[in-house]
Amino acid sequence: METVPSKEIEQRINLFQGRLEEMGLDGAFILQNVDLFYFSGTIQSSVLFIPRQGECVLMVQKAFERARQESPLKNVIPTAGRDQIKKVLQELGFLNLKKIGLEMDVLPTQLFFRYQQTFPGFEWSDVSETILRLRMIKTRYEVEQIQKAAAILHQGYMEIKQKIREGMTELEVDGLLAFIARREGHMGVLRMRGWNQEMTHAHVLSGESGAIPSFLDSPHGGTGNTPAMAQGAGFRRIKRDEAIGIDYGIGINGYVADQFRTLVIGRLPDELMRAHDFSLEIHSLFIENAQPEMPCYSLYRLALEKVQKTGLKEFFNGYREGKARFIGHGLGLEIDEYPILTPRFNQRLKPGMVIALEPMFVFPNRGIIGLEDDYLITETGVERLTLTEQAVLTI
Amino acid sequence: METVPSKEIEQRINLFQGRLEEMGLDGAFILQNVDLFYFSGTIQSSVLFIPRQGECVLMVQKAFERARQESPLKNVIPTAGRDQIKKVLQELGFLNLKKIGLEMDVLPTQLFFRYQQTFPGFEWSDVSETILRLRMIKTRYEVEQIQKAAAILHQGYMEIKQKIREGMTELEVDGLLAFIARREGHMGVLRMRGWNQEMTHAHVLSGESGAIPSFLDSPHGGTGNTPAMAQGAGFRRIKRDEAIGIDYGIGINGYVADQFRTLVIGRLPDELMRAHDFSLEIHSLFIENAQPEMPCYSLYRLALEKVQKTGLKEFFNGYREGKARFIGHGLGLEIDEYPILTPRFNQRLKPGMVIALEPMFVFPNRGIIGLEDDYLITETGVERLTLTEQAVLTI
Repeated sequence: METVPSKEIEQRINLFQGRLEEMGLDGAFILQNVDLFYFSGTIQSSVLFIPRQGECVLMVQKAFERARQESPLKNVIPTAGRDQIKKVLQELGFLNLKKIGLEMDVLPTQLFFRYQQTFPGFEWSDVSETILRLRMIKTRYEVEQIQKAAAILHQGYMEIKQKIREGMTELEVDGLLAFIARREGHMGVLRMRGWNQEMTHAHVLSGESGAIPSFLDSPHGGTGNTPAMAQGAGFRRIKRDEAIGIDYGIGINGYVADQFRTLVIGRLPDELMRAHDFSLEIHSLFIENAQPEMPCYSLYRLALEKVQKTGLKEFFNGYREGKARFIGHGLGLEIDEYPILTPRFNQRLKPGMVIALEPMFVFPNRGIIGLEDDYLITETGVERLTLTEQAVLTI
Repeated sequence: METVPSKEIEQRINLFQGRLEEMGLDGAFILQNVDLFYFSGTIQSSVLFIPRQGECVLMVQKAFERARQESPLKNVIPTAGRDQIKKVLQELGFLNLKKIGLEMDVLPTQLFFRYQQTFPGFEWSDVSETILRLRMIKTRYEVEQIQKAAAILHQGYMEIKQKIREGMTELEVDGLLAFIARREGHMGVLRMRGWNQEMTHAHVLSGESGAIPSFLDSPHGGTGNTPAMAQGAGFRRIKRDEAIGIDYGIGINGYVADQFRTLVIGRLPDELMRAHDFSLEIHSLFIENAQPEMPCYSLYRLALEKVQKTGLKEFFNGYREGKARFIGHGLGLEIDEYPILTPRFNQRLKPGMVIALEPMFVFPNRGIIGLEDDYLITETGVERLTLTEQAVLTI
């Protein structure tokens, strides 16, 4: 099984240690699965301590042997609980710790209080923003994983195009996409960091389903088949000449690719076809204009200006309450990473960012139209990471 | 689409208000998806305020119309942010709030601090344990949902038995199970409450894969196909005459059923067959002995005594580091609910509890054998909720 190259881990930790230095922190505990994987190469139940200087220590609760095989870190130590953590740190010579970082955007309150109890003298800082900003810039290795995931999405769209038939339910199509994804090696989960946000491998939204908003911070929601999930595919049967919007996302070696394609059995109505053309034009605009040092909000504005000229502003990226306030988002170990292309996010583009651009049009009672592709910001502009053809996929 | 009956919601809120009274709290904010669904019938992005007495208010950020359709609550109010929450509560006459509950087992620390800022005079208490204890006792409606989910698992096992062939990968089998689950209406996600715990719809573990432990608090882990997920199916090809352990879980209307079956192409070695018989015997022991008011730990001990007589104790519910410290767990909106059948959990059985009993045997290099079924504790004993035949499924 492929593990994370040790050079990757080394570089990530070095960069983070630089940030700890700047923030005046003595170290940080890394506790959440995804961040653990980023800094150690394993999600075995562990606590990773990253000191401002010197070697990290991965304290493993379960499964120890597996963590040792998966992680290139040198100090991997079996450790049963929080009290033992204290002991391990002392034995390794970390004696004067005081200012310590935690991932407070995801760390449960109860667990935070327990850390406070175990280490009564410590001052705690939130390092989640720092971690997310680090993770925003991808290495070549990381981009390659996203490309592998994107190649599977391509295959999925090509296969599903052959299999969709009039009268199939959205859920059947979703299930076939799940089968293809897993057969090809999708890791089985799409991770979202946002509180209460969760997503399956696909949204299959036919006709009016595409215009149903949900709690998700996304231009599309879908009915789902129960309020308990309230998103994605439902029992609606697919018809001829209506938009079938499919958002498909899978993960390889932890890294996610995310695409949206519009399909149709037969022919799309002219107005929807026109909206799809505009979505493609916004992609072209992005490819022509996006460059390092450009602020994210100016890309959003560029797209919005274009849309204003089309007269479709009302339907852009959602309708009424369903309108999403971004046209693109970062991708990596989680599907909701930095940067976000919103009217106000003033982060500048940097080489190594990976962005899913998703200019969509949502028409009430008719559905969702558009295209989402993943791009890498390079030294000179952008590179498309996804392979699928961009036209409407006609069945 | 089926929504939660208003009587269910009413009863849940009444019971919780009784607990708030006992705890001396003025009310609680319910913020997490699953608890929101339990008390309001919707997971649309909202804050639910449950006062000690009087009407609840569901303050919806997105999507408002959908929340209103899904929830039987009377007070459903569009509310943009935390400052507006304050205003809404004041307008509804909640003027002297002071002691307020929060779900601190899942609430992110950052969000907790923000609530502290917005409501500087409040004293906060953790009500997560109270919520979990309430959710532990299921109504007839809830049990029916679990039965519907279990019926789909039955269908899945019967279909997959026809499809598994020598040389197929675990991932292909997993994908086929995903297809069946979605086609039949699985909601798309299996929710776990535990910090850093996550699970897909299935673990497909053939031969030695079944003996690979993971970070999961479960007798089985599996290789997965990347350390980034580190569980479940991998690219291993299924062989003749070896154990194929499949843990399969799906959700209907929010409620999960969870089963494990042992399959084989050909014939299991005698020792493994014997272990399977012991697993069945532990199920029989449970059915004969489990009764209201019996403490959970005594069920665990009963099983352990049985196992000690078999000489297979070393392999029971995991091997070495992989050993799980429970033989059963509660099921409902999440897959890791109360009660837990451990050596020390002194909760007594009560009518309405739903328990997945999973006595397993794990043999290093050979795999996992056993059977998991879901039971309801009744006034007089137990009732099996699952339909699948209990013998080893021979292909």
